[in-house]
Amino acid sequence: MYIKKQRLLTPGPTPLYPPALHAMMRADMHHRTEDFRKVYRACLADLKEVMGTSNDVLMFAASGTGAMDGAVSNLFSKGDKVIVCVAGKFGERWAEIAKAYGLDANVITVPYGQVVKPEQVEAALLAEPATKGVFVQASETSTGAVHDVEAMGRAIAKTGAIFVVDAITGLGTMPLDIDGWGLDVVIGGSQKAFMVPPGLAFLSVSPKAWKLGETSNLPHYYFNLKKEKKSGDAGESSWTPATAMILALGEALVYVKQIGMADLIKNAQMLAQATRAAAGKLGLELFSAASPGSSVTAIKAPAGMDSGVIVKEFRTRFGSIIANGQGTMKGQIFRIAHLGYFDFADLFAMIACLEIILNANGHTVPYGTGVAAAQEVYAQAAVKK
Amino acid sequence: MYIKKQRLLTPGPTPLYPPALHAMMRADMHHRTEDFRKVYRACLADLKEVMGTSNDVLMFAASGTGAMDGAVSNLFSKGDKVIVCVAGKFGERWAEIAKAYGLDANVITVPYGQVVKPEQVEAALLAEPATKGVFVQASETSTGAVHDVEAMGRAIAKTGAIFVVDAITGLGTMPLDIDGWGLDVVIGGSQKAFMVPPGLAFLSVSPKAWKLGETSNLPHYYFNLKKEKKSGDAGESSWTPATAMILALGEALVYVKQIGMADLIKNAQMLAQATRAAAGKLGLELFSAASPGSSVTAIKAPAGMDSGVIVKEFRTRFGSIIANGQGTMKGQIFRIAHLGYFDFADLFAMIACLEIILNANGHTVPYGTGVAAAQEVYAQAAVKK
Repeated sequence: MYIKKQRLLTPGPTPLYPPALHAMMRADMHHRTEDFRKVYRACLADLKEVMGTSNDVLMFAASGTGAMDGAVSNLFSKGDKVIVCVAGKFGERWAEIAKAYGLDANVITVPYGQVVKPEQVEAALLAEPATKGVFVQASETSTGAVHDVEAMGRAIAKTGAIFVVDAITGLGTMPLDIDGWGLDVVIGGSQKAFMVPPGLAFLSVSPKAWKLGETSNLPHYYFNLKKEKKSGDAGESSWTPATAMILALGEALVYVKQIGMADLIKNAQMLAQATRAAAGKLGLELFSAASPGSSVTAIKAPAGMDSGVIVKEFRTRFGSIIANGQGTMKGQIFRIAHLGYFDFADLFAMIACLEIILNANGHTVPYGTGVAAAQEVYAQAAVKK
Repeated sequence: MYIKKQRLLTPGPTPLYPPALHAMMRADMHHRTEDFRKVYRACLADLKEVMGTSNDVLMFAASGTGAMDGAVSNLFSKGDKVIVCVAGKFGERWAEIAKAYGLDANVITVPYGQVVKPEQVEAALLAEPATKGVFVQASETSTGAVHDVEAMGRAIAKTGAIFVVDAITGLGTMPLDIDGWGLDVVIGGSQKAFMVPPGLAFLSVSPKAWKLGETSNLPHYYFNLKKEKKSGDAGESSWTPATAMILALGEALVYVKQIGMADLIKNAQMLAQATRAAAGKLGLELFSAASPGSSVTAIKAPAGMDSGVIVKEFRTRFGSIIANGQGTMKGQIFRIAHLGYFDFADLFAMIACLEIILNANGHTVPYGTGVAAAQEVYAQAAVKK
């Protein structure tokens, strides 16, 4: 047996920012005190700042799916016509939630690895002017592809529909001009680019979305956006907050602000670019070649090799956890994440390990060549600071 | 600004084993309780087991230097004739301690990067049969060189002298048959291969060393080996113990036993071998080519490049802390550590970073070639488990 450090290299949970973890040790405080209200207020204000929006930002003790649920149950009404863009497992989740609440969904499905085009959304909006909402993933984590939410948002803004964007892996990995592009609801989670464990979901809500919510008739209790907004304004959460998680997020947000959201995004973009360069050099094909995002890069296993073997050997040989494909993509692709607390040294190591695993399983590549492709990307970006 | 994770890649402190760190959180216990005695007893027993000795093992809240001090002040007497092997900064420390306590030291000095030969020690012992002790570093951390303590030990065992070995970076990086080779006193520290922060020193003491100590007339108080032995037998320390540190060490020792001391040593040896291969491929010279150890590899900076530039750019570009040379070696060499909680992924990353730094500072090397040399070592060792 030799030393293998467990490295969490999945697109969520993502590697944890150590000072944020240490902050969880400060959780022996009561949540209905001014001490905690300070922390909670700072969290909401910092989220708003790094998301770069003037919309309200609310937070829940929940996974990202909770905020998706709440966005539907608080803003829509039974039988509302909506458009759901499905380009992967998380698009399918939007369709499931819409169905669970009895919305009348026009589901636009594209094959895994591809994305729904803004023109498809425009056409669907034209075909049904009574559409109340459009649901999409900014970044579809299951395939690594990104939607053109800017073009979609600008088109939707001209209609009566609101644009509900799951940006759980989009925030911090791609530019999202929430106010400028008309992204009415933008959903994020703690365990992605925000570098802390799972357990917190947050969402921004535009005036247009609040307006639609006024007539909502769907039942909900825990996920009560209006109540949560009022509580948040008072520096509190409606229900008992996940104090340790909020302390962690608060600490991580200080770091995110220090780096700057623009540079955090660039960091992910550079790592993704370097990963694509390495994959190409190693003769591997990208799963979402047309619109690869920077939160995660999905790579096809070489012909005849199960991607599960790659995932397994990352664990057994190097203690590292990378992601397999989900659903029917399982066995076909593996996914290397870039979002949040990832750096170039992580990537160099990961690619060197990948080269070893490929060689050991019949896909012969010269050692160091994938690493070299990634190093070139680093050098050309002239990254120093 | 982009993400740079702080990686501690120095030959002490070394990277920390996370469960050991978490164990420090359990320090709200009193040290004079059966609960803590259990922890303390387990620590001493596990240290004895992984050191592989039947000698007594004692522990102090101190840095390794404290145990070196205690070995001298408890076992020797004023004016005792001793031999001190000096092959670097830590050999010089033995000479300073011997001087501080008024021993009559025959200091055998070799240039930095070289080691004292067993024959030199044998000759000195022959020349002075009244010699009471021989002091050496198993691994001289400042140069990366290792002494042949087996041959020295076998020679010293035939005389009346005791053999006092600073194995602070030797333990866990090189085989040390304490009982078989006659290593009368072997000193270790928590912040080396034992994967926890600095703060604890321990040493094994042979019957021959205890015997010599019976006539010792040097003053000491805190470092009282006899008193500490008695306390340890009762599952306690004489003075207030560093409880959090001991909880951490206890946890790390469980992991070391799980890996096995032999495999922990092999881990360091493989990493050192891979580092030497990479350095060679990158046209870099080893500082201690004749007897390189596996705790740390000292590499000469390319001609015309200050090694401080390499150390600085590891920090500024990649957030990683590597060691410069010490004393007159500063600026000439840099040191890459392998001891304790280091793995191949760490090394691949470190070499990729080094290649970038070399290229950026005028020493042109093809990207990925050093990494490839290290990958070859991994592959040839057929490491999988």
